Amino acid sequence: MEKQNDFLSFERMFKPETVVIYKASAKVSFFVEGFIRQGFNLENLYLVSSKENDLLGIKCYKTIDEVPINSIDLLILSVRRDSLVASIIDILSKKEIKFIHIFTAGTGEFDEEGAKIELEISNLLENHPETRSIGPNCMGLYCPQGKIAYYSSFPIESGNIALIFQSGDLHSKMVKFSSRRYNLRFSKGVSIGNCIDIQISELLQYFNQDEATDIVCVYFEGLPALYEHEGKRLFQVLKSMQKPVLFMRGGRTKRGQKAVLTHTGSLATKNTIWKAIFNQTLIIDVPPSLDELIDYSYLFSKHIYRFKNLNKPVKYPMNKNALVILWSGGFGILATDILTELGLTLPFFTGEKLEKLKDIYPIKIGSLANPLDVPWIVSNDVYLDVSKAAIDEDIDLVLVVSDAWKDLEEERFKNYFKNLLGIKSHVESMDKTFIIVLPDYPSKSRGIFHAKLVSNGFLVYASIESAAKSFLKLYEYGRKTRR
Amino acid sequence: MEKQNDFLSFERMFKPETVVIYKASAKVSFFVEGFIRQGFNLENLYLVSSKENDLLGIKCYKTIDEVPINSIDLLILSVRRDSLVASIIDILSKKEIKFIHIFTAGTGEFDEEGAKIELEISNLLENHPETRSIGPNCMGLYCPQGKIAYYSSFPIESGNIALIFQSGDLHSKMVKFSSRRYNLRFSKGVSIGNCIDIQISELLQYFNQDEATDIVCVYFEGLPALYEHEGKRLFQVLKSMQKPVLFMRGGRTKRGQKAVLTHTGSLATKNTIWKAIFNQTLIIDVPPSLDELIDYSYLFSKHIYRFKNLNKPVKYPMNKNALVILWSGGFGILATDILTELGLTLPFFTGEKLEKLKDIYPIKIGSLANPLDVPWIVSNDVYLDVSKAAIDEDIDLVLVVSDAWKDLEEERFKNYFKNLLGIKSHVESMDKTFIIVLPDYPSKSRGIFHAKLVSNGFLVYASIESAAKSFLKLYEYGRKTRR
Repeated sequence: MEKQNDFLSFERMFKPETVVIYKASAKVSFFVEGFIRQGFNLENLYLVSSKENDLLGIKCYKTIDEVPINSIDLLILSVRRDSLVASIIDILSKKEIKFIHIFTAGTGEFDEEGAKIELEISNLLENHPETRSIGPNCMGLYCPQGKIAYYSSFPIESGNIALIFQSGDLHSKMVKFSSRRYNLRFSKGVSIGNCIDIQISELLQYFNQDEATDIVCVYFEGLPALYEHEGKRLFQVLKSMQKPVLFMRGGRTKRGQKAVLTHTGSLATKNTIWKAIFNQTLIIDVPPSLDELIDYSYLFSKHIYRFKNLNKPVKYPMNKNALVILWSGGFGILATDILTELGLTLPFFTGEKLEKLKDIYPIKIGSLANPLDVPWIVSNDVYLDVSKAAIDEDIDLVLVVSDAWKDLEEERFKNYFKNLLGIKSHVESMDKTFIIVLPDYPSKSRGIFHAKLVSNGFLVYASIESAAKSFLKLYEYGRKTRR
Repeated sequence: MEKQNDFLSFERMFKPETVVIYKASAKVSFFVEGFIRQGFNLENLYLVSSKENDLLGIKCYKTIDEVPINSIDLLILSVRRDSLVASIIDILSKKEIKFIHIFTAGTGEFDEEGAKIELEISNLLENHPETRSIGPNCMGLYCPQGKIAYYSSFPIESGNIALIFQSGDLHSKMVKFSSRRYNLRFSKGVSIGNCIDIQISELLQYFNQDEATDIVCVYFEGLPALYEHEGKRLFQVLKSMQKPVLFMRGGRTKRGQKAVLTHTGSLATKNTIWKAIFNQTLIIDVPPSLDELIDYSYLFSKHIYRFKNLNKPVKYPMNKNALVILWSGGFGILATDILTELGLTLPFFTGEKLEKLKDIYPIKIGSLANPLDVPWIVSNDVYLDVSKAAIDEDIDLVLVVSDAWKDLEEERFKNYFKNLLGIKSHVESMDKTFIIVLPDYPSKSRGIFHAKLVSNGFLVYASIESAAKSFLKLYEYGRKTRR
């Protein structure tokens, strides 16, 4: 039978009207806390527990029969693995269930017996085309618009990033770390687990159509043993994606693949196949580092927002030419080496452009070069003028590496900050990328300066390297779209 | 004439009894603030200014003649470049000067005229073998034991790291960032500038003998135009070094070399030569990243301290086998990929060792594998037992990747922390390396947990990658010493 996976159907999964947690216990109270925190209508949250009378002030029904509704949008299933099959049969015989999130772990990833249970559930669900399922062995769903989350620490505000993760812990860390580090926000997130029913490819298709989603981050470990066609379908869907997909693979190394086997029990995929996929699609290959995935998501998310807010089509960098503006000769040399080694170019000032710069600022010490290293004028108007003259069509990325400032009330700081705002608006008016790097980490004055920059819409990274690598991914996506 | 550069002579430079700042002004008051902060005996600090009567409460003499001492250990020279030669001639005709720190910039790195000034000073100093000089174009000296520093923000406590930097700003950032980030401390530091007299090779020789110094960090941009033999001598000295030298080069790329020209005016050196030097000596090649230099210094500094405190000869890792202990399947996969791609090995548990582990902890869910992912027992005694059994002679590095903990007064945390201390002391009793990674950055609970770990002597990094790269440098140094 054909499974329903149309857009509206998945929309209901992320924005369920009615939810049942079966079985509710103190051990899974984090689910309930997540719903409470997101402001889910608790009248539509039903807990079933044979042992508890209530959980966090919410009444528990003794059995599924007692739950006073017939149709349930989302069932969160947390029972011992030995009871999984029987529970599903029982519940489906009594209620109409649209989605089951199977939280239970220790199935296919664990042993033969667990794999057998997965097969039984899969066969069972085949006969219930109206019921779709994520998991088992997963944390489940996050959608601020749908007011659902599995941890109370997840932000209640929505954003433009969607997540599909084959690891519940990484999914949680992605949300928590990136929201604290860069204030990132999400449209929807799925910790998808062992994929015995709903597949990554289906969610990608959904996110491709989802207007709330501008970029999709995937953490992938392997293909499900039960669905032999998923590999081909995934490739087809990846080819069709119309938005940036940041794709991080676990098990890139042979040693990593052995580790994957005990984690999700997924089938390993070959590096050569992935190389071809990254070559033939718009998909962006992300190294096995959550920090890098967060860095890249930050730039993609803010970059697309910027254009959307102006009602303009998103433009991506055409070239890899960087202008670096900073405070320090030594740091300038390191920045030049790092950027050059990463594949960026720092164009020299020559000819007319150099003459124009000299007219604006007849320098006596230091030099009008790229990196532009003129710290003694950062608080003068000429700093803005010289920076603007240095930024022309030849430049794709402007990186300002700045020291922190102790006294933000000082007149010199205010003028400097005005200059930074001026450079930013000049760069962005040309649809180019502007990033500030604050390397002094951690320090109190850095923290205060950082907060001021972020609240004024600046993109701020902690290192030249992370900023440059993120820019290069943005460039790579743009280059692919122009093929 | 032969210049004096014996050990005692340089010792006097770092621990001067008498210092003159010529000329003192509000613009260079940071020098005075540095001396005050370090507790230098202000009766031995003499300021000369034709304009000011006092600076920060310290009397200013109008001329050098008025300074009531004849012999001066350290003269800090801050005059316009046009007055440099005349000032030096004048002062040397009136006082005995052991060391001159020429702070003035805009000489050889700036233009032909500046290069001419440098040549004149160099010739002048040739005739004064009793006088040595660092600079020009540099921030100068830092030595907590000598109670001297050029910024008040530099730590007053001493440590075992020496610095020789061809960039004053990077020198300052190295001290400031690393002291905040990892609590690093320094024996001595030199921002050496354009090297018209004292050379990097001489300071390396000094630090090789200096008992307060265990490791030396160098930021190098190029060879001085005036000293054609420095290249050969530097190579000879690098060959003779008996302590770890972390060597970071600016101008590794051709584009970077062009930037070097306007910074210190140094002569570029070829990558092929450096490749040979790194192959033939114990010197450690550090990429152009201050963050990495700080990461590596952290591990080397603490590693050597650990053995010194036990009065044991320092042992370096014999192999690159890592055991990873963590809380998360997904993070375990990423850690496996990252470590493997970096060149580390994660040995499997097999045979007797696996049987022993199963005896200690007959696991029902998850697995006894490397990464060891058993978060539910972190607060039980068995966690320590199973970790200890997993750490044998086959393991060189133990990495614990830990979540932050909200409530450090909780009984479960206390037991977990006891386990961490137990693993640490077990690993260190075997002379192996133990590192904790706290990836949740920034967060308040991470900050509190981090402080507790550090005050208990743990090495803590923010990412698996930085921890692993630092370990690999430690291994590389050990491998080189065993050749």
